[in-house]
Amino acid sequence: MQLYAERALLDTGWADGALIEIGDDGLISALTTGVSRPPEGCERVAGALLPGMPNLHSHAFQRALAGAAERRGAGEDTFWTWRTAMYRLVEEIDPDAMEGIAGQLFVEMLEAGYTSVGEFHYLHHDRDGRPYACLTETSERIIAAAERTGIALTLLPVLYTSSGFGGEAPAAGQRRFVNGGERYARLLDALFSRHARRPGLRIGAAAHSLRAVTPGELDGALRALRSLDAHAPIHMHVSEQVREVEDCVRWSGQRPVEWLLEHADVDARWCLVHATHLSASECDALARSGATVGLCPTTEANLGDGFFPAAAFLDAGGRFGIGSDSHVSVSPLEELRWLEYGQRLVHRRRALLASPGTPSVGRRLFEHAARHGADALALPAGALAAGRRADLVAVDTSLPALQCREDDGLLDALVFAGNVNPVRDVMVGGRWRVREGRHVERDPIRRRFAETLRTLGTL
Amino acid sequence: MQLYAERALLDTGWADGALIEIGDDGLISALTTGVSRPPEGCERVAGALLPGMPNLHSHAFQRALAGAAERRGAGEDTFWTWRTAMYRLVEEIDPDAMEGIAGQLFVEMLEAGYTSVGEFHYLHHDRDGRPYACLTETSERIIAAAERTGIALTLLPVLYTSSGFGGEAPAAGQRRFVNGGERYARLLDALFSRHARRPGLRIGAAAHSLRAVTPGELDGALRALRSLDAHAPIHMHVSEQVREVEDCVRWSGQRPVEWLLEHADVDARWCLVHATHLSASECDALARSGATVGLCPTTEANLGDGFFPAAAFLDAGGRFGIGSDSHVSVSPLEELRWLEYGQRLVHRRRALLASPGTPSVGRRLFEHAARHGADALALPAGALAAGRRADLVAVDTSLPALQCREDDGLLDALVFAGNVNPVRDVMVGGRWRVREGRHVERDPIRRRFAETLRTLGTL
Repeated sequence: MQLYAERALLDTGWADGALIEIGDDGLISALTTGVSRPPEGCERVAGALLPGMPNLHSHAFQRALAGAAERRGAGEDTFWTWRTAMYRLVEEIDPDAMEGIAGQLFVEMLEAGYTSVGEFHYLHHDRDGRPYACLTETSERIIAAAERTGIALTLLPVLYTSSGFGGEAPAAGQRRFVNGGERYARLLDALFSRHARRPGLRIGAAAHSLRAVTPGELDGALRALRSLDAHAPIHMHVSEQVREVEDCVRWSGQRPVEWLLEHADVDARWCLVHATHLSASECDALARSGATVGLCPTTEANLGDGFFPAAAFLDAGGRFGIGSDSHVSVSPLEELRWLEYGQRLVHRRRALLASPGTPSVGRRLFEHAARHGADALALPAGALAAGRRADLVAVDTSLPALQCREDDGLLDALVFAGNVNPVRDVMVGGRWRVREGRHVERDPIRRRFAETLRTLGTL
Repeated sequence: MQLYAERALLDTGWADGALIEIGDDGLISALTTGVSRPPEGCERVAGALLPGMPNLHSHAFQRALAGAAERRGAGEDTFWTWRTAMYRLVEEIDPDAMEGIAGQLFVEMLEAGYTSVGEFHYLHHDRDGRPYACLTETSERIIAAAERTGIALTLLPVLYTSSGFGGEAPAAGQRRFVNGGERYARLLDALFSRHARRPGLRIGAAAHSLRAVTPGELDGALRALRSLDAHAPIHMHVSEQVREVEDCVRWSGQRPVEWLLEHADVDARWCLVHATHLSASECDALARSGATVGLCPTTEANLGDGFFPAAAFLDAGGRFGIGSDSHVSVSPLEELRWLEYGQRLVHRRRALLASPGTPSVGRRLFEHAARHGADALALPAGALAAGRRADLVAVDTSLPALQCREDDGLLDALVFAGNVNPVRDVMVGGRWRVREGRHVERDPIRRRFAETLRTLGTL
């Protein structure tokens, strides 16, 4: 397949007349620029062509809670009271609901310009906390939703054993998440043996958080993963809440990131999600580790987490990608915009996340999050180059907010003046999944989601 | 004209079967609820009916800069370097450009669910700083754009005389803004005599800021305004930047809000825009004054202003409305969402702007901003009730993010899970201006905007 774009943001920068050859494997096999006229029969992309954005942190089922937990309660409302509402939803989800919600969510992601997703998947068991007849039942539903919608998936089955630091027994509301080390290893085995070679699907592993696994369990899970795939990604929530940091210090004498950097082999295969509360030395050390930080600005704002020190982290050479996490918003542009805005509000300055080499804030944010998001998902995506996946987005440059903006100026307008969704067409792994702003299967998937929501009742 | 809605948010709360009678004057003449079947020939509104949102603070021409000032410069990027870029745009605007940009902007506002706008209008003169042959030339262009698009307008011509506290002479870049007291009074006179009785149009006044007018000039402008209309609104930028607060203290020994509350007749006719940096006593006193605070969360974030103490201000009984100000975003839902999110990030809690009486954050924010925004514009709008303007919005409750959400739950989903624009139909003063998400004159207005942008070049 051949694609031609008049203007495209490639690995090497902006280019005119890009001719993109895409193999049957969904990878870009060749890229030529400066082509003034596309060959006969070649498809022409309208607008500007950009790499699709990886969404590195998702709990798909939580989409059903979006907007339904925004009420003042009797006491103080916090992350922890939100978690109680989320656990109530957990009680209601069955495998069909999981698939119905994930399908709708993935359509929304694709229509917003996300082309891959890291599913941090911890809802493994039935309502009584017993494994389904098929141990990977709910994982299979996530995979089915990704296949149907066409989004590339890095599935990160989650190890979850405890409710607090030091191996505290899990609470009743967590029973659907819990696997001991041995069963977790079997879960990984089953997923790798069934799905390791499927195109557009990658298997990794996750530990929920330092409060939910013991050091020995973390070690065991990492060994199990490495024996299956030495390069597989490992994700973990860390330092999202101040209470979590305090509990960790009480348990170990160290802060979570400090502990992890000393006790685990944190390197470029790792993605630390949130990492909101960092000391200056943790921030520097994390940047040096090569790990990606998974930032989820809309969820972190919704949950009142606090501000990640993004400017200092980038200045120290750190890497981040973005995730929509709880999916209260599903928009890479809102994530990027408010990541920068948070820094502006805290520091009372502007253009904080640009760099001397890339003065355009839009370009820096978009390109950085695309590349490192893909790294965190261990997918060859996040940039348009030969050998990488044909995951790409065409934006409508005739929109009033984008017209007369060019190249980096277009990316600035896209990120900052972008509250009308500018995504027109989206390709994942060489196949068009969104055309003229609509996912090709939008309607039937939406109907199924509506049925699912009805079974869940008004939350 | 009669309208029927199955579910509507009225002045008195949510109601089933609302039958709304609208007079030729564009006001709601009667409202009946509990009507199970609409009368023959009555128009039926699909979805849920809400009051339209007033946008209480706009500089229309700045829409042309949206997304075009997001680059790191050689030095430190701040509000003040942004202002330099904005002044460069000012040099380029002629009356035709003013009308072309305002037309496009007002279409975007209506499509996003804003039904009225307070135009804080300071670009009065030609490129050499000389008044146009018609003193109200640029004001007339704003009025023409509002009439064409149908948005209700409160025009706030701005008094601007100085570049710093204590009457410092204006800078070259400010020459198009400057009117002495006498000419400002003539400008007000001309606007009132021509437009005071036009439906959907209200004239008020504004002083740019305490740094841009002297106490004597402020007094004079207020006297001129009161002689024309004792109830007309008065708007003023205040305490947006820390440097402005420091300069004010140096000049007067008082902070800007403190000074204003002591030296001006600040009451319910006033709207203080931004008021970002408040001491605790200023916050309380401002809440007691009855003035509205004009909050512009997306612009305040874009410019790195800082965080308005919204939770404390509401707890003290304060009132706010919202504005899109520089129009980097044009979305009442993004403004409301990030107003709450800013408070969550600062306080690390959730649901901060709800109240014990209105636990739904979405309901509280939407209703409060609609009512007090209308008060700040001195328009009888902001709620659906007999005697008020028929400014209303129908939202598409079949969207995945809104389905199965009801009443306050719908407003929570609208504000927080609302990054797909849910506005379907918009009526202003009894006339439909947006149908199925499109402004009825979208295309010709968009073409004119495109021509305008081309004359401005790539900014």
